[in-house]
Amino acid sequence: MTSGLEPSRGVLKKLINDPFDAVDEMVEGFVAAHADIVRLVGERVVARNPSDRPKVGLVIGGGSGHEPAFLGYVGAGLADAAAIGNIFAAPSPDTCLDAIRATSTGMGVLLAYGNYAGDIMNFGIAAERAASEGIEVRTVLVTDDVASAPREETRLRRGIAGDVIVFKCAGAMAERGASLDDVERVARATNAATRSMGVALSPCEVPGAGRLSFELSADEIEIGLGLHGEPGMRRGPLLSADDTAAILVDTIVADMEASGPEVALLVNGLGATAQLDLYILYRAARRALEAAGHVVSRSLVGDYITSLEMAGASITVTLLDDELRGLLDDPARAARFIR
Amino acid sequence: MTSGLEPSRGVLKKLINDPFDAVDEMVEGFVAAHADIVRLVGERVVARNPSDRPKVGLVIGGGSGHEPAFLGYVGAGLADAAAIGNIFAAPSPDTCLDAIRATSTGMGVLLAYGNYAGDIMNFGIAAERAASEGIEVRTVLVTDDVASAPREETRLRRGIAGDVIVFKCAGAMAERGASLDDVERVARATNAATRSMGVALSPCEVPGAGRLSFELSADEIEIGLGLHGEPGMRRGPLLSADDTAAILVDTIVADMEASGPEVALLVNGLGATAQLDLYILYRAARRALEAAGHVVSRSLVGDYITSLEMAGASITVTLLDDELRGLLDDPARAARFIR
Repeated sequence: MTSGLEPSRGVLKKLINDPFDAVDEMVEGFVAAHADIVRLVGERVVARNPSDRPKVGLVIGGGSGHEPAFLGYVGAGLADAAAIGNIFAAPSPDTCLDAIRATSTGMGVLLAYGNYAGDIMNFGIAAERAASEGIEVRTVLVTDDVASAPREETRLRRGIAGDVIVFKCAGAMAERGASLDDVERVARATNAATRSMGVALSPCEVPGAGRLSFELSADEIEIGLGLHGEPGMRRGPLLSADDTAAILVDTIVADMEASGPEVALLVNGLGATAQLDLYILYRAARRALEAAGHVVSRSLVGDYITSLEMAGASITVTLLDDELRGLLDDPARAARFIR
Repeated sequence: MTSGLEPSRGVLKKLINDPFDAVDEMVEGFVAAHADIVRLVGERVVARNPSDRPKVGLVIGGGSGHEPAFLGYVGAGLADAAAIGNIFAAPSPDTCLDAIRATSTGMGVLLAYGNYAGDIMNFGIAAERAASEGIEVRTVLVTDDVASAPREETRLRRGIAGDVIVFKCAGAMAERGASLDDVERVARATNAATRSMGVALSPCEVPGAGRLSFELSADEIEIGLGLHGEPGMRRGPLLSADDTAAILVDTIVADMEASGPEVALLVNGLGATAQLDLYILYRAARRALEAAGHVVSRSLVGDYITSLEMAGASITVTLLDDELRGLLDDPARAARFIR
């Protein structure tokens, strides 16, 4: 051998142990680091410390590799539990069911997660089993990625960073003591008001895979690429932050069903892009939104939903009304989202 | 030309515009995104919205490229202002002086920053000028990087992620209304109780530089590398997270002046390392600390002080007593640090 690497280490350098232990070790580390906020209540189910009163349960989840999503968004005013899958793979039905059971206090449970076939199948099986146990379960799929299907088929769209906005608003509504009907209504309204689009600059590598998630040449980007490397809308040369933001914002704005000046703007890093770049992109996106007649009144900038060490970013825009603005502003105390 | 890149774009793909505008555009984006917490009070000086009562001012700062440091740590219970330099370069004396003036309410101002020659020179000039204006200024240099000088010469050590812990404790003490003497004492005590060490997996590129900050082969890491690519203690093959954590923690523990079971543990990502990896490294570091007889009672995991898109991480350990634990636990509301 010409290198000191074990073959299982793959193409990119990672700070991990055996790739097959990566998710469980991550979860163990996470729960130990944030024991003031969460605990492990089943295999790969992270739940907030118990609420002192009955409330609608909010269960989120999906594959690992998107940290701080999803387990970082479990806490007061946000999600009650996260069901955790393997890297870029849906949590098992048993994991989803454990999460539902852990959050059920008699007022029903809302499942909110990105629109992916594996998640739909496994959360769906769990929802049926929970229903047979007498737990009322509703489901809202997040479908914010405008690049993943045309406007006429929004139900086919994937969920990306818009997840965070939907979780925040639904979690705040549940924390207020609202009914399952109202929490579901808010989650649907937030998703309907939210559009995202991303750009990838370089790939990630699933631990143990031994290959990159996709290939891009040294001067190439992919616009609209999905969180797991799903194909985007087009490839092209690297653009300036201003030009990149203009393409993403213009596509998002043209896609919106409603209009209204006030928006929330989330600029999300995919994992390996400098925070410096994210704020430059935020500046450009904000200017593009203002040029389109919008007013940005709420902002988030950082790595909210990542794709391991993928380089790139996404822009998420949510049309705000009084209700959604108030829900975004409500306090929250999760391990990786406090306000 | 064989690529669509402008030559100034350099080796790594970035989401920026003209490299020479990067810092000012980042600051503009930051202040716009976080206008509820900070404002621009001078050229490249970000200050918290005014306190409603006199207090000791805490001024932090340094080069850009470490975001969310330093400007993300300006806010109630943390720093009062950050002086911002070019990428990996000290803020100018004028910038430092503007930051001091903006935070002076008659109770004195503490400057806390990493131990780098450029920062010492420019903050030092500003401190002298502020003194001539009647502002009492003290300085505490953060020297947490055990890899940067031997134990006998801790005053030569650089400041890395330990900055965050020093800022948090000093900022909390100032927020409580303590005197300049007490805020300075706490900053020195926190620095004395804090040790860090990092590992780099891949380099970053200063915008416009046209070259990487250092070179590492595909299977190589550098242990002890500085935040700006300063040489570390040694290079070697990529290690597991467990082995990496053991080296860093053992070096840190052997270096500590005092002993005591209770510690805070910060695992900091340098920019391009997956959050998944950081939690795996946290788990390993915590186990290594426990094996050395320590109890980890406070934890932070995430990208707290980055080096643009460098891959790697650092481990920071602070020996806690009742005072430091209480100060870490105090509320804080900065753009990128809320508790």
